[in-house]
Amino acid sequence: MLLGKVIGNVWATRKEDGLIGLKFLMVQPESLEIDQPTQQALIVVDRIGAGVGDKVMVTQGTPASYIDKEKTLPIDALVIGIIDAVEQDRGESGD
Amino acid sequence: MLLGKVIGNVWATRKEDGLIGLKFLMVQPESLEIDQPTQQALIVVDRIGAGVGDKVMVTQGTPASYIDKEKTLPIDALVIGIIDAVEQDRGESGD
Amino acid sequence: MLLGKVIGNVWATRKEDGLIGLKFLMVQPESLEIDQPTQQALIVVDRIGAGVGDKVMVTQGTPASYIDKEKTLPIDALVIGIIDAVEQDRGESGD
Amino acid sequence: MLLGKVIGNVWATRKEDGLIGLKFLMVQPESLEIDQPTQQALIVVDRIGAGVGDKVMVTQGTPASYIDKEKTLPIDALVIGIIDAVEQDRGESGD
Amino acid sequence: MLLGKVIGNVWATRKEDGLIGLKFLMVQPESLEIDQPTQQALIVVDRIGAGVGDKVMVTQGTPASYIDKEKTLPIDALVIGIIDAVEQDRGESGD
Repeated sequence: MLLGKVIGNVWATRKEDGLIGLKFLMVQPESLEIDQPTQQALIVVDRIGAGVGDKVMVTQGTPASYIDKEKTLPIDALVIGIIDAVEQDRGESGD
Repeated sequence: MLLGKVIGNVWATRKEDGLIGLKFLMVQPESLEIDQPTQQALIVVDRIGAGVGDKVMVTQGTPASYIDKEKTLPIDALVIGIIDAVEQDRGESGD
Repeated sequence: MLLGKVIGNVWATRKEDGLIGLKFLMVQPESLEIDQPTQQALIVVDRIGAGVGDKVMVTQGTPASYIDKEKTLPIDALVIGIIDAVEQDRGESGD
Repeated sequence: MLLGKVIGNVWATRKEDGLIGLKFLMVQPESLEIDQPTQQALIVVDRIGAGVGDKVMVTQGTPASYIDKEKTLPIDALVIGIIDAVEQDRGESGD
Repeated sequence: MLLGKVIGNVWATRKEDGLIGLKFLMVQPESLEIDQPTQQALIVVDRIGAGVGDKVMVTQGTPASYIDKEKTLPIDALVIGIIDAVEQDRGESGD
């Protein structure tokens, strides 16, 4: 999953069937390293109440579309968790 | 989903089965940041009436192929919404 | 879908089951913009008669494997159309 | 599959349904070549006991979501193996 | 599909269920053009007897997991062919 930060909301009145009522957020992927290239922000569906400023885990692709048991939805990105902490330890014992 | 702008139409007479009558658009992915690399334009199916100049949400991969309940279509990109507004707030409270 | 140009043929005698008789092409992704990075050429299955020099639409991922109703094939790229024209209009009215 | 190294743990209390009890790791993709760009670290589900410092194989996309036979889970990355050794031989016989 | 060259073997004793007995290879994606960036090497399942030095076609994503009719396997890359020849013709008639 991608690590990102919610940076905004997206509004769209005209949509494909089945998407009415879904909340769309802009999420900026974040890097743990300063010198890594940053990916472009993407649009992500949220159902767990994430808001601007939250660090989130985002699932991409088909698994993001598993949110409706009755029908298949044409979405490819979903907030699956709001991150409390990332406990990082790159060690110092070489590779 | 990817944020993009419709920049043209694509015409193809000879096609795989099941694709006759679908509208194909060129969509240029857009970045919220000036210094981010821009991805290449891609070809996207549209069923909701998007036109040149519209900002759109594009679903990629298998979920984009969910548009026909009767049969599976070999397409991997679909306009799922025409964007009214992106409300952006990167905050100023650090990270 | 990706926009590309057929640049060659690929021959492989030893293959996974189910792939005998399929035609494999080399396709070079093309950019509408000169200053965009070009992706690497990829190997694509063709069933509609594309040849060297043709501009084609390529579907990637699982939807590319939908070509056999009886069994699932381990392929991830398919020519879905031979492009007649791309009608481009980036407009001049700003963003 | 991607080759990576476990560099940390990720904690998230608020999550999508079905994800309670899963362990989430930060994994840094690794390159065999010094001059290749390094991809960003990603969040990966682990069920086989990988820990910080382990070299792992990571499956991405839908196949990563195949871990529950009863229901589909919205996850897109899974540790599928802890690597003992990579036996590399680039040969010297040209290309 | 990706064009690559087998550069080594990967050994992993501790693995997800269903993966015992599969052969894992390191494959280096190859470019037809000298000035294109090279992607990172990836880990690929092989069932057709590819060995170090072979040029191979690699299917990625869900279609790579279609190798077992009885159960779904969490793998995302598969050697589907050993390449005999790539017949390239970029033409000289402009674009």
